[in-house]
Amino acid sequence: MTTDLRIDPDRMLAAFDELAAIGSTGDGGVNRPTFSEAHLAARQAYREQIGKAGLEFRSDGAGNHSALLRCGPEEAPTFLLGSHLDSVPHGGRFDGALGVMAALEVLRTVQDAGLRLRYNLEAIDFTDEEGTLVGLLGSSALAGHLEASALQNPRGGREQLQQGMQRAGLTEEGMLSARRPQGSLAGYLELHIEQGKRLERAQKNIGVVSAIVGIRSYRAFFLGRADHAGTTPMDDRRDASLGASAFTLAARELVTQDFPNCVVTVGRMDFSPGAFNIVPARVDLALEFRSADAGEFERLNAGLLDLAQAQASRFGLDLKLESLGKHDPCPMDPRLQTAIAGACDALGLSHISLPSGAGHDGQSLAGMCPVGMLFVPSIHGASHAPREFTEWSDCVNGANVLLQSVLRLAS
Amino acid sequence: MTTDLRIDPDRMLAAFDELAAIGSTGDGGVNRPTFSEAHLAARQAYREQIGKAGLEFRSDGAGNHSALLRCGPEEAPTFLLGSHLDSVPHGGRFDGALGVMAALEVLRTVQDAGLRLRYNLEAIDFTDEEGTLVGLLGSSALAGHLEASALQNPRGGREQLQQGMQRAGLTEEGMLSARRPQGSLAGYLELHIEQGKRLERAQKNIGVVSAIVGIRSYRAFFLGRADHAGTTPMDDRRDASLGASAFTLAARELVTQDFPNCVVTVGRMDFSPGAFNIVPARVDLALEFRSADAGEFERLNAGLLDLAQAQASRFGLDLKLESLGKHDPCPMDPRLQTAIAGACDALGLSHISLPSGAGHDGQSLAGMCPVGMLFVPSIHGASHAPREFTEWSDCVNGANVLLQSVLRLAS
Repeated sequence: MTTDLRIDPDRMLAAFDELAAIGSTGDGGVNRPTFSEAHLAARQAYREQIGKAGLEFRSDGAGNHSALLRCGPEEAPTFLLGSHLDSVPHGGRFDGALGVMAALEVLRTVQDAGLRLRYNLEAIDFTDEEGTLVGLLGSSALAGHLEASALQNPRGGREQLQQGMQRAGLTEEGMLSARRPQGSLAGYLELHIEQGKRLERAQKNIGVVSAIVGIRSYRAFFLGRADHAGTTPMDDRRDASLGASAFTLAARELVTQDFPNCVVTVGRMDFSPGAFNIVPARVDLALEFRSADAGEFERLNAGLLDLAQAQASRFGLDLKLESLGKHDPCPMDPRLQTAIAGACDALGLSHISLPSGAGHDGQSLAGMCPVGMLFVPSIHGASHAPREFTEWSDCVNGANVLLQSVLRLAS
Repeated sequence: MTTDLRIDPDRMLAAFDELAAIGSTGDGGVNRPTFSEAHLAARQAYREQIGKAGLEFRSDGAGNHSALLRCGPEEAPTFLLGSHLDSVPHGGRFDGALGVMAALEVLRTVQDAGLRLRYNLEAIDFTDEEGTLVGLLGSSALAGHLEASALQNPRGGREQLQQGMQRAGLTEEGMLSARRPQGSLAGYLELHIEQGKRLERAQKNIGVVSAIVGIRSYRAFFLGRADHAGTTPMDDRRDASLGASAFTLAARELVTQDFPNCVVTVGRMDFSPGAFNIVPARVDLALEFRSADAGEFERLNAGLLDLAQAQASRFGLDLKLESLGKHDPCPMDPRLQTAIAGACDALGLSHISLPSGAGHDGQSLAGMCPVGMLFVPSIHGASHAPREFTEWSDCVNGANVLLQSVLRLAS
């Protein structure tokens, strides 16, 4: 009976721990920004795990790495499982890696059981999900909507991207030609940690994702004038730090007051020239905001851009904006949500429906095939930091739900 | 008649232009942070100029470079002239370099005239005046009050300092033993651009400096918590950007309202982890403030530190402060002020008395010998930026006042 099939928790843990040691921060986290030495080592380890499992290895021009199990008819489409092995700088060891390791474990379990399904199965590690360079890079390329302009003006910097691709042996031409044929994918399912507190607070085992938030990012340049910090009176200055600071506070105020379901983040400012004794001429500010609702997403965008202009003008500064990426809010496929919920029920696991506040590769694939996601609880909601943690029993639950959901959809 | 003696404007211009080409930013400025390749090249060029002028070269463990003219009795103390060849990042070509080139030109003029004076003359290039690494480094070392702690915790970063010293062939032991004997200096005079608008507005040729402002700098760490920027609600965050931004605005407000003769600058913020999609856990903020009055200087210090604590607390952040240097307000020697004013009058140049809003090496030497400074006008007051400019005729006036002031003091 395939409904009795379960993944091997010890085998999955061994594979997971192997990954967690690569780029380890020493306090439970990993530091594996896309195409860093640690990230390349993690990719290499995954290739070796695929080989040891006796699965077929597959890669593409975008650097996506997969294990392929030919358990379906020869010409059957592929049902894709997976996540990503890159991390934010000094991130956690569960974000992404759990989904890839669970996908690999599902393939091994199906392989060991000798099951024949309607589809072939593939466990993918998508390139640059986190956006140290571009964001959802591998999944966008695979879905065929990676634009050349996204590679020209990546949010992590053009030079960083080029150097990274070179280290990984990738080219722009390869990136832009990694598209898979329409109809080649039967669906995509991803297991991920929640990265929030809702499951923990609701004391539920599994989150069935209803939608992925829209995410938009800009680089905002507040432009003033460099002056001597000792001889330029306060009222003679065009100090870029003032506009950037005022915008940071006002953006938070706007979201807190008028957009309570949204978030806005200023994750970084770079000052030029950047010395103690020079009035800063320029602040490059990293702006990102999110909403699960399409209309709200547009209103928030307009509100924040107006605010940036207003705060720049208030301090006599110029403002330049560079749009660095836009991912619209993305609802999950109802049939896949039903399969996940059904698998939970069959496994005796409690579940709730919730939107994902984080972006995920599934949103890239939504136009190409049915997409679904499931979450397991994050302790204290911590994520993108070394203290990110999920109980191993919850990871095992998630992998079993992933397995049983696939079997429901592919049997 | 020594009162008829004048410097050679063309020779000084040639030397000045040679320096301005080293580390040129292409738009009139220079980029010569201490011990950068460009700065080391400028130091080398100065050594060669000294050699070509037939003057004696002198250096010390702090990397100060001088031309020495033995025009006094064998055991006579030295009258020091000079300034510095380092620049702020992307600074101007006059700041510092004019003073060194004028000092060298004064020595050449005295040498050519075959004058015998009461003192020997020395034209010095002080190490790291601007503080890319430490600030007033060479002059503090020469005056014997460079502390080992200043090298342990430099405002430009310990690693930067160590790498720079290595490139320059210097050691900490050398730095700390560069003290000159008490009584070895008869005085110090420096020509510098004003870096402000007061001479231009008053339409005066020369500024006779009355005092140098006190300068204090801190690194302020606003400490929060890294969180996922998508899944952490706004009111669950401890976002370091908010405290740093609020402090930046409040510090300006405090100075504008309560300390109208002072200035405060936030020249830089460094965000950690520094990604678009992570709530910043830490902002390292570069704080500097200045006052010409000792009491006001202390009150401003207390006010700003209270404000930093208050803004950190307001957003649930911790605050850590590192004091990176304190230079008390420093009055100039009355006898040297009189000599400068007298030289102006004899040369038919108009002058006013004014404080220096910028710090200068003279403040390091004030406990060791009489110190004086003179300013020439800065167009639009611009400085620490490539558009910094002073008419060449004003530079020549300044060098002639420097010459005639020295002759009044050393004849």
